[in-house]
Amino acid sequence: MTASPVLARIRAAYARIDAVDRPEIWIGLRPRSEVEEEARALEARLAAGAFLPLAGRLLAVKGNIDVAGLPTTAGCPSYAYEPAEDAPAVARLRAAGALVIGTANLDQFATGLVGTRSPYGAVRGAHDPERVSGGSSSGSAVAVALGIADLALGTDTAGSGRVPAAFNGIVGLKPTRGLVPTDGVVPACASLDCMTVFARTLPEAEAALALMADPAPHPAPARAPGPWRIAVPPVEQLGELDPGWAEAYASAAESLRAAGADLRPVDLTPFTQAAAMLYHGAFVAERYTAVGAFVDSGPAGLDPTVAGIITAARDIPAHRLFADRERLAALRAAAESALGDADALLLPTTPGHPTLAEVAADPVGANARLGRFTNSTNLFGQCAVAVPAGEVAGLPFGVMLIGPAGTDDRLPRIAALLSPPARIAVVGAHLTGEPLNPQLLSLGARLICTTTTAPAYRLYALPTDPPKPGLVRTAEGGAPMETEIWELPPEGLGALAASLPHPMTLGRVDLADGTTAPGFLCEPYAVEDAQDITEHGGWRAYASSRSGD
Amino acid sequence: MTASPVLARIRAAYARIDAVDRPEIWIGLRPRSEVEEEARALEARLAAGAFLPLAGRLLAVKGNIDVAGLPTTAGCPSYAYEPAEDAPAVARLRAAGALVIGTANLDQFATGLVGTRSPYGAVRGAHDPERVSGGSSSGSAVAVALGIADLALGTDTAGSGRVPAAFNGIVGLKPTRGLVPTDGVVPACASLDCMTVFARTLPEAEAALALMADPAPHPAPARAPGPWRIAVPPVEQLGELDPGWAEAYASAAESLRAAGADLRPVDLTPFTQAAAMLYHGAFVAERYTAVGAFVDSGPAGLDPTVAGIITAARDIPAHRLFADRERLAALRAAAESALGDADALLLPTTPGHPTLAEVAADPVGANARLGRFTNSTNLFGQCAVAVPAGEVAGLPFGVMLIGPAGTDDRLPRIAALLSPPARIAVVGAHLTGEPLNPQLLSLGARLICTTTTAPAYRLYALPTDPPKPGLVRTAEGGAPMETEIWELPPEGLGALAASLPHPMTLGRVDLADGTTAPGFLCEPYAVEDAQDITEHGGWRAYASSRSGD
Repeated sequence: MTASPVLARIRAAYARIDAVDRPEIWIGLRPRSEVEEEARALEARLAAGAFLPLAGRLLAVKGNIDVAGLPTTAGCPSYAYEPAEDAPAVARLRAAGALVIGTANLDQFATGLVGTRSPYGAVRGAHDPERVSGGSSSGSAVAVALGIADLALGTDTAGSGRVPAAFNGIVGLKPTRGLVPTDGVVPACASLDCMTVFARTLPEAEAALALMADPAPHPAPARAPGPWRIAVPPVEQLGELDPGWAEAYASAAESLRAAGADLRPVDLTPFTQAAAMLYHGAFVAERYTAVGAFVDSGPAGLDPTVAGIITAARDIPAHRLFADRERLAALRAAAESALGDADALLLPTTPGHPTLAEVAADPVGANARLGRFTNSTNLFGQCAVAVPAGEVAGLPFGVMLIGPAGTDDRLPRIAALLSPPARIAVVGAHLTGEPLNPQLLSLGARLICTTTTAPAYRLYALPTDPPKPGLVRTAEGGAPMETEIWELPPEGLGALAASLPHPMTLGRVDLADGTTAPGFLCEPYAVEDAQDITEHGGWRAYASSRSGD
Repeated sequence: MTASPVLARIRAAYARIDAVDRPEIWIGLRPRSEVEEEARALEARLAAGAFLPLAGRLLAVKGNIDVAGLPTTAGCPSYAYEPAEDAPAVARLRAAGALVIGTANLDQFATGLVGTRSPYGAVRGAHDPERVSGGSSSGSAVAVALGIADLALGTDTAGSGRVPAAFNGIVGLKPTRGLVPTDGVVPACASLDCMTVFARTLPEAEAALALMADPAPHPAPARAPGPWRIAVPPVEQLGELDPGWAEAYASAAESLRAAGADLRPVDLTPFTQAAAMLYHGAFVAERYTAVGAFVDSGPAGLDPTVAGIITAARDIPAHRLFADRERLAALRAAAESALGDADALLLPTTPGHPTLAEVAADPVGANARLGRFTNSTNLFGQCAVAVPAGEVAGLPFGVMLIGPAGTDDRLPRIAALLSPPARIAVVGAHLTGEPLNPQLLSLGARLICTTTTAPAYRLYALPTDPPKPGLVRTAEGGAPMETEIWELPPEGLGALAASLPHPMTLGRVDLADGTTAPGFLCEPYAVEDAQDITEHGGWRAYASSRSGD
């Protein structure tokens, strides 16, 4: 008997855990049999008609968040305790049908953005094991990126829910503080910590967020009508970026502009100045408030860098905190004034992606650099979403949209515009004025240009209704064929692909200018008895030659 | 020289106007040369760096909305006046780069939901000229549905911005009253009229709405967290529907449930009772307030049905209006209580789609039936979006989501969930555990089942990196091949199609159970020298036979 989709998903996940050989992802991986048993109970409830919108989605939980039945370690084995119940966020996702597969590794006490500060092992990047995974929600992000978990919970104080999303090519949502309860979380800086969620796609992350949220602490601020307004700082204010990252960032901004957003300059100074205050000012003392007494007791398994940061925070005098709060309030006012009525601030999520060796050589400095763009968000009470924005040198590049408190619903809509539109090359019934052209229009397509294919194709008249051409790439004897290039949203191209009738196919079409685009081709069997009309140079010329018969 | 995309779009639109032979769409179609001249000025501004997010989108404007340079007729030639300036909504879309191609036909004085009540001609449905287009924004909707205009403005008092969207298979957004100014609109019922927008896709309609909106009159109401909550009335409360429409409606509800929405029953009674009050109570007297004196003056070109309705409204006593307002307030309270914390009410947009002959035989009765679900929306101060939801008997079927005032941003997000997920059949490198499987996961795909193709395929080992199978349908000598079926969002299938490398293609794959799904195939040239591995029955069996060598 075939396994149910839920059981098949669990088996695939555990097979993947074996295949990827990344034991450092996990602190408390649950036995497969235990998860399967939960799955069977879930399926019985589903069969009885229960409403379980996340039925069978596999969830990894950062090791500083309570999961009943698994120890909460915060990345320090001697700190571990057995929570009596799930953190509310975990409980809500489970109630919706998600299955917890385990607790995930993290920078100890969520203190770090690198993913290497853990006695459970340094978490290696999903796409390049020589590079760090990012942290502190390291295991959560890599479990999702490698396809083991579908969703993962993280936390974010300085950027822990966003930096590892960027490094591993996934989505990280950092909601407005107060939207998701942080009960059941080992605090890093209790007044700044946020629960976050990772997923491979925005809709999956948004669905999870909606299910784990409390009622919004305050309503979304009204926005002035008009296109999305995106604040983009001048590139020189971004500081040193990894090679190619400035170009990738500019390209993300251009994608938003091309999708209709209004880009406007912004002064980044208050953001970067506030960012520097998170570890270099008095706010770090809150980490001592959280776990200082424990660290001072000299337990086993402390990460030396983390212990050093927390211990040093003990001696910060309170008068500095008063002074820093005053300075932060001024910077926040300056930041809000700089943003004006912008819907979001677009930034690279981090300035670069270090190797494990680079972080080992300078544990504090390499880490501090990573927080340049993320550190200020919680200090300013904003929300953010970190999303993939292409690749640089074969590795994921990520950007972040930061918005005012309460705009959690808007940021993913803006981020969705980063996906570039698709193109399609059409040579027959979808051409302007031909019978299937309205299908393109109904999917939101727009004509970009008229051109020809590379001289590598033969064209056949297929016996279809309406009559369609069969375009076939050939090693020899090909010719250029008249082609229109249309642009359409990715979901439009998906709808076209989903509705392909025999014998039409979509494949890559080589164009006259040396570029390529997806375009209509056909199955081989269809051209066996079809008429070769290559000599006409295109479908319209063939059609008019026939009507002239 | 090739025409610019904007000029090419204009030429295609005017060619389409000629080709479709639907002169009744237009009241004041602008000459092509005039629009082209505006386009050239637009392109100069674009070249100079102007921000024009709607650059070159073609806009049709309902004939009761002011467009400077064209007479405003409200569908009555003797009523025509020359407006001094564009209505603000028109001006804002033009300022964003939209090009007005003309004023469109309508049910006279926006009094009707049929599209036949006009001396400029009865507007025929875009997909079946024997059926009505719906109204009153008849020409606007058909111009968009036929691919002539990209956007169209309509108005909606009883459903005029939604009924024609449903009949013509397009999107109609009816915002919360007050979000878009109605200045420059000939009033139907001034206290209920709304400006609306038509487009072929939701994102296009939303972008236009954002550009023509005023600041929101009141903030979006807070929503309790959790999945989308959709109110669905029992089917018997919908009354008589056209054949197949109850099933199509149930299917739309099921799509929302499958996408994670929480469906809950609702009592439709207050909605349908309020709907009946719009024409059968005292509210219709406001139409006499608007144009009664003009109609009484006995001008030429009055539509007899419209004139009859407006004239009859003269004698409604004001005491009935007081009584009706009291009754409406009670019904509104009952409706809001019935909806509770639901995000939206799902309804068929109309109960059926009449022919021109049916409407001619019973002009008032056929019209009244059409407003059963739409009439109450403006009376209750709600917003709504009408979207296509498949076809019944080869014609568009449409549903409507109605939400509380101020939830204009939410309804399109819910409506987007009506698009069913796509499926894809994979036979090689995308199978679970194979090298390209993470690509599927990263696009939001989930495994549905493992099966085989129909016994009509041959499988080849292609010399690709990573190694991939070439699946080819064959007339004879085919065999079943191991296949996994995955489900993914349409944009995920689009991304797969956009990234197809030579020689991979997507086409329709026949499955063992007689169903079909889009799946990976390959270009014919690629299998010419490839190894036929059909005998193995699938890629995995072939791969394991090789590793056992």
